[in-house]
Amino acid sequence: MKTRIKKRYEEDPDNAWNCCSWCEYLLIVILSTILLVGVLVLTLFWVMFYRDGFAWSESPKQQFNLHPILMIAGFVTLSGFSILIYRLCRCVKQIYVKLIHMFFHAVAIPCIALGFISVFASHDALHKVNFYSLHSWLGFVTMGMFVLQFVIGFFSFLVMLCCENKTYSCRSAMVPIHASLGLANFWLAIATSVTGLIEKERETVNEAGVSENKLVEHYITSAIGVTLIFIGIIVTFAVRRSNAPASAKVYVTERI
Amino acid sequence: MKTRIKKRYEEDPDNAWNCCSWCEYLLIVILSTILLVGVLVLTLFWVMFYRDGFAWSESPKQQFNLHPILMIAGFVTLSGFSILIYRLCRCVKQIYVKLIHMFFHAVAIPCIALGFISVFASHDALHKVNFYSLHSWLGFVTMGMFVLQFVIGFFSFLVMLCCENKTYSCRSAMVPIHASLGLANFWLAIATSVTGLIEKERETVNEAGVSENKLVEHYITSAIGVTLIFIGIIVTFAVRRSNAPASAKVYVTERI
Repeated sequence: MKTRIKKRYEEDPDNAWNCCSWCEYLLIVILSTILLVGVLVLTLFWVMFYRDGFAWSESPKQQFNLHPILMIAGFVTLSGFSILIYRLCRCVKQIYVKLIHMFFHAVAIPCIALGFISVFASHDALHKVNFYSLHSWLGFVTMGMFVLQFVIGFFSFLVMLCCENKTYSCRSAMVPIHASLGLANFWLAIATSVTGLIEKERETVNEAGVSENKLVEHYITSAIGVTLIFIGIIVTFAVRRSNAPASAKVYVTERI
Repeated sequence: MKTRIKKRYEEDPDNAWNCCSWCEYLLIVILSTILLVGVLVLTLFWVMFYRDGFAWSESPKQQFNLHPILMIAGFVTLSGFSILIYRLCRCVKQIYVKLIHMFFHAVAIPCIALGFISVFASHDALHKVNFYSLHSWLGFVTMGMFVLQFVIGFFSFLVMLCCENKTYSCRSAMVPIHASLGLANFWLAIATSVTGLIEKERETVNEAGVSENKLVEHYITSAIGVTLIFIGIIVTFAVRRSNAPASAKVYVTERI
């Protein structure tokens, strides 16, 4: 029975690959890789050349600088690749795709945790209040949802596999919920990142300094923001569901 | 043939409504209505009581205040209801759902246009530079995508209906693209709104004034931001696709 299902799935015209799907696939792979790696490189460049680089405990300002790098690495670059895995690994067995998906998110966790600690330690050293700004509130919601998604995803799609047949309907019902909330969480991370960028930029405006250097920095932070937005659009577009259900239903009726 | 398809669709256990789906449906209707109307009321309250209300051309500051109200009305409240229509109108004929969807977006257009003009006129009167901040860049991308989605959606799903059978495959292929980019555009609007809120809040911090009033205003703008984020999450969750394709395919194979 299993082989028949597999055969049918590959024969289905909805799943057949034509030239157009190949072009789209390649375009998404190349564009998303450039954008996801590019945003991290751009953030590193901004921090190194315009915000005096980073350090752990010598200077609170440099310690703070770890925050944007680690958060963008964890919440955007790693999570972005993790989501795209579902679109990109078309020929790999489902269980391996799941494991790679979990691996990317698992690597994101220490990045996010360190990014969170670095901003707390830096605020404490500078005697700033924690959880005051809108950025921090949004960040709190984002982290909460990330942890929830990770734990629920781990139990639903990996632990429940130990009893594969009995948990099928439950796992199947969880898929669209996990996917939609995961996408919402990704956009939430992007929205939080752009608020952080604007907050930092507004702080810089109030600091004394050379104005031309600030203008270049303004363009760099704006470029990071716009790149983040394009990442959101390309990831949402890449993981869209095919329009299969409607045609599949017509197909069923015709064959009965 | 048509009646058979309809009958089958309603008989399909995937589309049958159990108590759980009713509860979820009701919860989404109530929560999303409260949040979508609530965010507009909260913005109006903020503008009226903390930003000196609004006017068209008497004062540039009051004219600017129309910008957040109109943009949130157009891009969030009206667009949000427009997207949710697809989830909420389950028993209405597809063509009416499409027309209501288009109507809500059409009403959003004058709101967005006026919101755009109001900020331009206010900036000109205050001799401020246009399209400098990250917020304005993101706003530009959001508006561009909104117009593209409206035009493409109008032609693909309404004009193409004049030749219903020949355009079926084209329209069917456009559905997931329009849906995913529409959701991306909605999140983009939310991200742009929160950057705008942070920008305004940071400007206020630099102005002289009573500090306690500012603290309350800070909580109000933060509440608007957090409400926007919850709207994004609930809308993404509400319009998730069911997990039908997989089960439908197994079903087909079993019947052949």
